[in-house]
Amino acid sequence: MANPAWYLPADRIFGPDPAQRRIAQELYEQTAAPLPLVCPHGHVDPRLFSNESATVGTPAEMLIIPDHYVFRMLYSQGIPLEALGIPSVDGTPVEQDHRKIWQIFADNFFLFRATPTGFWLMFVLKEVFGIDEKLSGKTAQSIYDQLAAKACLPEFGPRALFKRFHIEVLCTTDYATESLQHHQAIRDSGWDGTIRPTFRPDDVIHLLRPGWREKVRVLGEITGVEIGSFSSFIQAIENRRAFFKKLGATATDHDGITLRTGEFAPQEADLIFQRAFQGQASPEDAERFLGHMLMEEARMSIEDGLVMQVHFGSHRNHNQPLYDRFGPDRGCDIPFQAEFTRNLRPLLNRYGNDPHLTLVVFTLDESTYSRELAPLAGHYPALKLGPAWWFNDSIQGMIRYREHVVETAGLYNTAGFNDDTRSFVSIPARHDLARRVDANWLAGLVLRGIADMEDAHAMMYDMAYGLAKKTYKL
Amino acid sequence: MANPAWYLPADRIFGPDPAQRRIAQELYEQTAAPLPLVCPHGHVDPRLFSNESATVGTPAEMLIIPDHYVFRMLYSQGIPLEALGIPSVDGTPVEQDHRKIWQIFADNFFLFRATPTGFWLMFVLKEVFGIDEKLSGKTAQSIYDQLAAKACLPEFGPRALFKRFHIEVLCTTDYATESLQHHQAIRDSGWDGTIRPTFRPDDVIHLLRPGWREKVRVLGEITGVEIGSFSSFIQAIENRRAFFKKLGATATDHDGITLRTGEFAPQEADLIFQRAFQGQASPEDAERFLGHMLMEEARMSIEDGLVMQVHFGSHRNHNQPLYDRFGPDRGCDIPFQAEFTRNLRPLLNRYGNDPHLTLVVFTLDESTYSRELAPLAGHYPALKLGPAWWFNDSIQGMIRYREHVVETAGLYNTAGFNDDTRSFVSIPARHDLARRVDANWLAGLVLRGIADMEDAHAMMYDMAYGLAKKTYKL
Amino acid sequence: MANPAWYLPADRIFGPDPAQRRIAQELYEQTAAPLPLVCPHGHVDPRLFSNESATVGTPAEMLIIPDHYVFRMLYSQGIPLEALGIPSVDGTPVEQDHRKIWQIFADNFFLFRATPTGFWLMFVLKEVFGIDEKLSGKTAQSIYDQLAAKACLPEFGPRALFKRFHIEVLCTTDYATESLQHHQAIRDSGWDGTIRPTFRPDDVIHLLRPGWREKVRVLGEITGVEIGSFSSFIQAIENRRAFFKKLGATATDHDGITLRTGEFAPQEADLIFQRAFQGQASPEDAERFLGHMLMEEARMSIEDGLVMQVHFGSHRNHNQPLYDRFGPDRGCDIPFQAEFTRNLRPLLNRYGNDPHLTLVVFTLDESTYSRELAPLAGHYPALKLGPAWWFNDSIQGMIRYREHVVETAGLYNTAGFNDDTRSFVSIPARHDLARRVDANWLAGLVLRGIADMEDAHAMMYDMAYGLAKKTYKL
Repeated sequence: MANPAWYLPADRIFGPDPAQRRIAQELYEQTAAPLPLVCPHGHVDPRLFSNESATVGTPAEMLIIPDHYVFRMLYSQGIPLEALGIPSVDGTPVEQDHRKIWQIFADNFFLFRATPTGFWLMFVLKEVFGIDEKLSGKTAQSIYDQLAAKACLPEFGPRALFKRFHIEVLCTTDYATESLQHHQAIRDSGWDGTIRPTFRPDDVIHLLRPGWREKVRVLGEITGVEIGSFSSFIQAIENRRAFFKKLGATATDHDGITLRTGEFAPQEADLIFQRAFQGQASPEDAERFLGHMLMEEARMSIEDGLVMQVHFGSHRNHNQPLYDRFGPDRGCDIPFQAEFTRNLRPLLNRYGNDPHLTLVVFTLDESTYSRELAPLAGHYPALKLGPAWWFNDSIQGMIRYREHVVETAGLYNTAGFNDDTRSFVSIPARHDLARRVDANWLAGLVLRGIADMEDAHAMMYDMAYGLAKKTYKL
Repeated sequence: MANPAWYLPADRIFGPDPAQRRIAQELYEQTAAPLPLVCPHGHVDPRLFSNESATVGTPAEMLIIPDHYVFRMLYSQGIPLEALGIPSVDGTPVEQDHRKIWQIFADNFFLFRATPTGFWLMFVLKEVFGIDEKLSGKTAQSIYDQLAAKACLPEFGPRALFKRFHIEVLCTTDYATESLQHHQAIRDSGWDGTIRPTFRPDDVIHLLRPGWREKVRVLGEITGVEIGSFSSFIQAIENRRAFFKKLGATATDHDGITLRTGEFAPQEADLIFQRAFQGQASPEDAERFLGHMLMEEARMSIEDGLVMQVHFGSHRNHNQPLYDRFGPDRGCDIPFQAEFTRNLRPLLNRYGNDPHLTLVVFTLDESTYSRELAPLAGHYPALKLGPAWWFNDSIQGMIRYREHVVETAGLYNTAGFNDDTRSFVSIPARHDLARRVDANWLAGLVLRGIADMEDAHAMMYDMAYGLAKKTYKL
Repeated sequence: MANPAWYLPADRIFGPDPAQRRIAQELYEQTAAPLPLVCPHGHVDPRLFSNESATVGTPAEMLIIPDHYVFRMLYSQGIPLEALGIPSVDGTPVEQDHRKIWQIFADNFFLFRATPTGFWLMFVLKEVFGIDEKLSGKTAQSIYDQLAAKACLPEFGPRALFKRFHIEVLCTTDYATESLQHHQAIRDSGWDGTIRPTFRPDDVIHLLRPGWREKVRVLGEITGVEIGSFSSFIQAIENRRAFFKKLGATATDHDGITLRTGEFAPQEADLIFQRAFQGQASPEDAERFLGHMLMEEARMSIEDGLVMQVHFGSHRNHNQPLYDRFGPDRGCDIPFQAEFTRNLRPLLNRYGNDPHLTLVVFTLDESTYSRELAPLAGHYPALKLGPAWWFNDSIQGMIRYREHVVETAGLYNTAGFNDDTRSFVSIPARHDLARRVDANWLAGLVLRGIADMEDAHAMMYDMAYGLAKKTYKL
């Protein structure tokens, strides 16, 4: 089918009111679209850029296999992960023919109707690869051919796309014990794209994660600190933060189940640390240790200036049988109720009044937007709210975020957009969608006499670019 | 007052943008309106159809007395249930003059402004009974006369209305110990309307419901199973499911306070079952027994193919003094916080990867839509989300459902519409409203370039018809 | 900058659809705008009216220093409260130059973009004081001059503004132990504005508030009751309610952390009361005592006819270090999860079926709107829902309130608007915004064929005026 008018029209996402659409388009085209992309938080593999000749791979490698947004939807309709080429951890053989995988995907592309994933995929096909057909079972192989042919061309190499996407800076996410060798290689290569690591110490501060002791051993080794006590552990972490910072990091990132911040006496920290070393930490120990470590990390952030990110409230690997066969990150992390008012209080009371701290909080529980997070961000100088995250990084999710957050927190206590993606080629699609949603929201303010065009353009700039740069010190 | 232009105009519910209204109307008229009504979940009394000469009754019997949506609103404004003819259980005399009841209702019809109940009632008056006046205290008796006159005509008999309403299939809800004699009578009568029972074993699996032991005795009697142990109890339930299936059932239905699924060893099940028989089960026993029974029912559903429905999270009969005087289902079931991520995990980990299971989950806690249910449904093959339920089966409730669910779960992990009503004459009103809300939602997608008309028509078909048929195997 | 077209245009807030805007404007202009303002719940200082020559003060005294909505936003961006002239409690010196304070505020006025506070401030500047410039760092001093000049004129005195604002009645909030001398003085002065006190016994029913014993002593003194037991305590409260009623009160008001209503035996109440007197009450004692007192207050309300208001769910003074330096009401009260279904049940089961009780409930947890409060209000005769409260008294907050509440609770189980403000000059801005949001919501109903214009005008009247008058018996 030829590219119909609806297929990514120039005024997509705007409206429906024609006047609102007109204003949105002006804001988008004049202010947002020309701005470079700032990507302060994401999961793109730095190896795409450390090796000059890297490619984006086959269509299946590029769009399906690494993207749990995509394959979870197919799985939810009964398509086994084996058939989609998702690597197993238990030796289950998986489909190797990427054309077959692509055919299944295309046959079922209707499942993505009205989803952000569907929208991003259409964008990648059309805007990144110039495909003019609508993806379906019938057009699957023809589109595969076109994608495969282009993926080999130099102008579709990751470094070339980085420039074409107009990316100003791209931050990855890296565990404390990672060597950052690819970041070093990028720097050494003389390439002028800006890729920055982000310090994520989850591997060493979650006492009950499998292999914790080994991770702490590695941490000691790469920092040259002999870790025999809590205080030397802290010293090693401080040392590692400095190393990340030297390689360009401006931020840290923290995951966890609950967010019960709180401090204990140094002796108590050491006792629990020793218990963990003997393999005897309880879940309560682990939770309180994490709560204490968040306090420590906040203190370090005030000292070294790294922006602190926390995102909590997802039950990771909810589907145990699937986890046993395919490992983590398979589309079955499921959110649950979050609580910030009581849980963040110890940290905010201790450090939240200090403007030297920038604490960016994300949530998957939208009921906390207006109830807890916006009032907190509208008061504490240190607190900024991360954008609509993960499942909520969608058209309606972003609209809800604006509608629930801004009136109470103010726009200037939000952290700007981030794409949080593993799929490099989808980055412009995600920024485009967010900028359009925001332009349309601003146009609504203008039409209802809440903002004038001067303010709306200033806000558009900040939402598309300024806030992310400022929040993350980029 | 003569029927003003606004009174159910042809483009009602659509808009406000004229372009959106035009597209919505095309989707509605070309695709949705011609489709028959599929009613997979509801509470219509099968006696309306087993007896060829049944009528819909007086206006009060038809629209007020059986409909707790209607009389709870009058009660909330201080009108006693006695005055509305609601049968008491404590001997309180109640109004017998249905004209008086109707007058009170009409005098207070303004209370239903901007409510779905008001919209459904207007539809019944105009579209089903051809009333052209606006209901008010002044027009009350004239409208009563018109309704009463029509209700006696053969073309307003339930079987005739069933055909006129274009109902393809209507499922009732029936306790495990019910004889299904009226379903049998419908089949025996040779009438060609399709009425199916639904297996709801709440009467025998909630250990602490008054009369539980007697219900289990009846279950044993009608299944011919001597129930002396948990395993014979299970056998009786399996037997009863087979009987329901023989009479047309394609689904089961489960209610409860919490949804803490989980399994215990067969001996433990038997111990608790015996305790219950001796009248010594604790609330904790009852909750865990229910959690275990949900696992058993899921297993049975995989074996016999019955679709499994669960709807939890309502505090039944919240108003004790009213319950003591008027019994259950009096408009005072009040929802509370729900939790699915942890509570459903045991069941989903055991059976949720099996595409032979269809588990339809309903909720009254909208904060779980985007946080828990959409991510779960967007992953587990067995899970489908029931439509906006009960209080949320309203214009804004259905809009919120689409906006919170579809982007993450995908449309094809939702179960289609069901009317869930006790009020037979309101069925077309409810489907009409839902189809219009959906048409308008789709028109918004088209206008914003998210879907083309081809996709929108396909989605309209599925939302109005296809999804319900497929999910419920009808 | 000259006053641009957008700056509070006549059709502000309406739209964006032109037809909706037209209908909204008709509803607003014909029905809402001419109605007087009814202010049943707020925190304006009665001294503004007891003294004929009182003024609204300097621009900083009028708009910044007393309004924690305003200064919390500046604080959240790192501006110290000292710099804004907020009085400290620990002796910290604070800025005394109100022109400097105003300059900081104006420099940072962009922070209020898209917030209700920003909208109200623009209204006050333009509609109350006739300022035609856009506030910014550049125009700060010129606007200060204009405001300061006008504030001295008799027509900008509080009593004159009261008339110009077209306020029919203004209710303040007053602790049980307050003398009401300013209310008495207003009455004695012969001025014909209606100012009524509201009885808020938080000072004497929260056992663990600092100074509780002293407050009870004062209560005894001013009521002439010797308070030595729980029953004499109750007698003193009844006595004090009568006094408030004599001075015009029609309502009471209750704050607290949780809302766990419930009753204990008289002896138990007395035991806890005595324990509290000996300084030995536990948090559990205090919570249960409060729960019992709510039952008592409901009983008293049935007896003396005072409307009972409860608003719970805010963690007061969340920021301890700031509280230690600046005291309460500094913009750091943070909401948390609320629960009404179980917590209100004892009270509603005991008194909720009695139409002599009017219980107005407020919430900061929007997830309870559709899940708990609307179903409760749509059933219990005594229960009415307060309007979108505090942070939710915003454009989107009010829209969400209508969309989540009305379909289930019905419009006539809501309590009408109240401004709940400490800022007297902002009262017309708040009513104007609410009326416009409501007019636009009604216009949407009309356009979609859900209401006709006759109903819409009737609803507009009730939402802007009738419901508040009726609910609060004004």
